[in-house]
Amino acid sequence: VAFSPDGRRLAWGSTDATVKVWEASTGDVQTLRGHLSSVHGVTFSPDGRRLASASQDGTVKFWDVPPPRETSGWVANDAGQ
Amino acid sequence: VAFSPDGRRLAWGSTDATVKVWEASTGDVQTLRGHLSSVHGVTFSPDGRRLASASQDGTVKFWDVPPPRETSGWVANDAGQ
Amino acid sequence: VAFSPDGRRLAWGSTDATVKVWEASTGDVQTLRGHLSSVHGVTFSPDGRRLASASQDGTVKFWDVPPPRETSGWVANDAGQ
Amino acid sequence: VAFSPDGRRLAWGSTDATVKVWEASTGDVQTLRGHLSSVHGVTFSPDGRRLASASQDGTVKFWDVPPPRETSGWVANDAGQ
Repeated sequence: VAFSPDGRRLAWGSTDATVKVWEASTGDVQTLRGHLSSVHGVTFSPDGRRLASASQDGTVKFWDVPPPRETSGWVANDAGQ
Repeated sequence: VAFSPDGRRLAWGSTDATVKVWEASTGDVQTLRGHLSSVHGVTFSPDGRRLASASQDGTVKFWDVPPPRETSGWVANDAGQ
Repeated sequence: VAFSPDGRRLAWGSTDATVKVWEASTGDVQTLRGHLSSVHGVTFSPDGRRLASASQDGTVKFWDVPPPRETSGWVANDAGQ
Repeated sequence: VAFSPDGRRLAWGSTDATVKVWEASTGDVQTLRGHLSSVHGVTFSPDGRRLASASQDGTVKFWDVPPPRETSGWVANDAGQ
């Protein structure tokens, strides 16, 4: 579970293989899909514009913020091996 | 286990489904109840005024600081799915 | 595993119930004893003068830095319940 | 999973006993070998020049950044006990 540097977002991983991001401005929670297994770690970049998530399936994914969505071009090129 | 940004509080999750917050000024520990399962992650917001906790039951809760207490209006609206 | 804010110390918990602190200036590693079970989380206070460790036995302990040693008066008064 | 302080690197541990480091400038991922068991924690030093990794085998290793490589002289002298 991690706050963004500006404190306006909170992200956490879920055992259902999703990442959730709560937005303080709206109270909404977005569900980010793409991992295949439980997500055990999330962290924002220092500038708050990227979110990284690590899954038990061995992959790490990057997501743009905001709005949170998977940036396919950013997926680590040998993650998940 | 996480210190608040000002270093005056320490929070941690417990396997008994509670969150504990230690206050440097008094030495007291508050017990925050609300989760239904083991709490595996806690983090303070950058301004130190909010605490988020993540539980094995899949929920994330927000708490006001100080005094630490659950702010029901802040519970992520689809957390725990 | 956590660096101190000045980057001159690294602390980590061990499954043998100890906390280890490496000192950059000397290369030495101190072993801090007191927990009864595996230590799964450590964190430095923002000013780097205190170290907190959380154990699977449910307790959280505070240690003075430097030199790292347990400050008995700082043990959270209901930790470990 | 941890970003470097400048946000240009992301490191994470793997269950295959390796540490991976993604470089934003190139998109490459380096694989750091040396641990004998699953790596459960990684953290950058505050100046971003060192990476520490903790493994289930009880050891903590230090790596130079960049390029990430194990600095044998930096291995904690009683880590892994």
